[in-house]
Amino acid sequence: MSECTLPDTFTAVQLAERPTGLPDDNTFQIVEQSFEEPEDGEVVVRVTYLSLDPAMRGWMDDRRSYLPPVGIGDVMRGLAVGEVVRSRHPNFAEGDRVSGSLGWRQLARVAGKEVNKLAPGVDWKLALGPLGMVGMTAYFGLLEVGSPKEGETVLVSGAAGAVGSLVCQIAKLKGCRVVGIAGGADKCALLEKDFGADAAIDYKATDDLTAAIRAACPKGVDIYFDNVGGAVLDAALANLAFGGRVSLCGAISQYNATDGIKGPANYLALLMQRGRMEGFIVFDYAARYAEAAREIVGWLQAGKIQYRYDVVDGLEAAPRALLKLFDGSNTGKLLVRVDRQAD
Amino acid sequence: MSECTLPDTFTAVQLAERPTGLPDDNTFQIVEQSFEEPEDGEVVVRVTYLSLDPAMRGWMDDRRSYLPPVGIGDVMRGLAVGEVVRSRHPNFAEGDRVSGSLGWRQLARVAGKEVNKLAPGVDWKLALGPLGMVGMTAYFGLLEVGSPKEGETVLVSGAAGAVGSLVCQIAKLKGCRVVGIAGGADKCALLEKDFGADAAIDYKATDDLTAAIRAACPKGVDIYFDNVGGAVLDAALANLAFGGRVSLCGAISQYNATDGIKGPANYLALLMQRGRMEGFIVFDYAARYAEAAREIVGWLQAGKIQYRYDVVDGLEAAPRALLKLFDGSNTGKLLVRVDRQAD
Repeated sequence: MSECTLPDTFTAVQLAERPTGLPDDNTFQIVEQSFEEPEDGEVVVRVTYLSLDPAMRGWMDDRRSYLPPVGIGDVMRGLAVGEVVRSRHPNFAEGDRVSGSLGWRQLARVAGKEVNKLAPGVDWKLALGPLGMVGMTAYFGLLEVGSPKEGETVLVSGAAGAVGSLVCQIAKLKGCRVVGIAGGADKCALLEKDFGADAAIDYKATDDLTAAIRAACPKGVDIYFDNVGGAVLDAALANLAFGGRVSLCGAISQYNATDGIKGPANYLALLMQRGRMEGFIVFDYAARYAEAAREIVGWLQAGKIQYRYDVVDGLEAAPRALLKLFDGSNTGKLLVRVDRQAD
Repeated sequence: MSECTLPDTFTAVQLAERPTGLPDDNTFQIVEQSFEEPEDGEVVVRVTYLSLDPAMRGWMDDRRSYLPPVGIGDVMRGLAVGEVVRSRHPNFAEGDRVSGSLGWRQLARVAGKEVNKLAPGVDWKLALGPLGMVGMTAYFGLLEVGSPKEGETVLVSGAAGAVGSLVCQIAKLKGCRVVGIAGGADKCALLEKDFGADAAIDYKATDDLTAAIRAACPKGVDIYFDNVGGAVLDAALANLAFGGRVSLCGAISQYNATDGIKGPANYLALLMQRGRMEGFIVFDYAARYAEAAREIVGWLQAGKIQYRYDVVDGLEAAPRALLKLFDGSNTGKLLVRVDRQAD
């Protein structure tokens, strides 16, 4: 295969300054970078789609976490998919479709060991959705951390989102009663119609979330899958069933807090109800991704899982698009189509 | 055995009103009650020692918990030991030593099934200490909820207290590095000298508790046994090791809060560190008390466990004595010697 011609420069997005609160127009800068040929062991990937995820907010802060902070002036970190256009790694050839932490850029020169080949025929978006990190997060966060049993009640926040919508459906497939929390009537309708929820709670239209959860979960909450933290976590804890589990996936309501994180005032429900609150990071389950993907592919092929994408065009749009995660204006997996020709 | 003569009346302490914040002189009222002969299945117990415990504060509030609230005008609930002086239950004879939820009173008429015989020869105080609820709490809260492994670091708050001092010593016996947090130089000296702590932190003399814990636990905190909640819980979470566990036993710093419970702002450490925070109530382990008691008796007989009591004389002194738990002025198990003749 002859090498394709690549432009001399390509677009990338760097972290320009650490945001206080919500990222704004000064947080990122869009730059042109020069193309560099790969060295031994490296590949160059033309990025087709970039995943935008709540965790990105944490990566911008200069504090201890499960990954080091992104440096000022560095290309912003991000999961993405794309096509190998140069390879000096024996496992990859030009034309291979791969995923990995490719960053916010059109062309990514990375070590071959940092990327994974997509299964043949897998759609780009699927690889960043149910078969990507969000799929793995939903699968292991619910099944391993939450350990649902048939007939139990599973409460999910951010339930119309990229992870939450999968958690709802997997919980339903496992025989649970599923209650989803989302913002807005449209998302709540989607939860009940497409995402398998037995009931949906619109937190924006609810004065008393604790009472709303009690009404929807009359036997209490056996598993609460938390994507949001804050007041929703407190309301869920207030309804925890005996032996209930809280699977801590994220706390999007707190990521832009400027006056400190709000801890769950109702945490003593864990004591009264002999409950457990447990965090996880999906990377810990890497050895079992293939197992999860097999089961999820089966559900997808059988039409048992529905999934939504919210696609924004062009890398330049990424900084503003990221904010949709924090104001809740996206439905489903938020993606940037970096290559406007990508299918 | 001829029946002993009992007085016509005896002293009891009732809950007079629900306290806001710390209990005060209006919270309890001391009353004289009439002696009543037992009915079928009942026993009458002359109380020798009453246990004063932080959990009592929660029982005074009118809210959902693991036990119903004590009613206004009811005798205050409390664990106690004493001697059976009348029995109409086949399992008990006069002179038997028993323990149970006998309440704040000199004479308790209770169903026989509500009390347990003490093992022959067991000292009154021991039955409310290492072989009583506090012993069981330390044992199961550390070993079952915490699951310590040899070489792990165990951090304990309220470490010079009734439960904490046992947790420190059991953790040490299990091969852990033990760091205790207590208030005051005397308690800290006791922790290192008698209670098996490798290091002690005086929280009253520490400006930066997070840094003090980091210095004492350079590899991070594998297990945090929490008796206090509040700022200490946050500082412990900030030092949580990968896969760390928080065993939630209590939150004495929060029991008298009038402006709401302070939730742990650092709870997302559970996510970053893949940690787990779990509550327990000792009653759930009732079927295994005998097993724990056997092991604890062995340690006591081998001189491997030290224990301290703080004994106050007379039931009238109980309301004021209870406050010692909340200002930290007791060291070891706080008891009321209800019968001033008791050994």
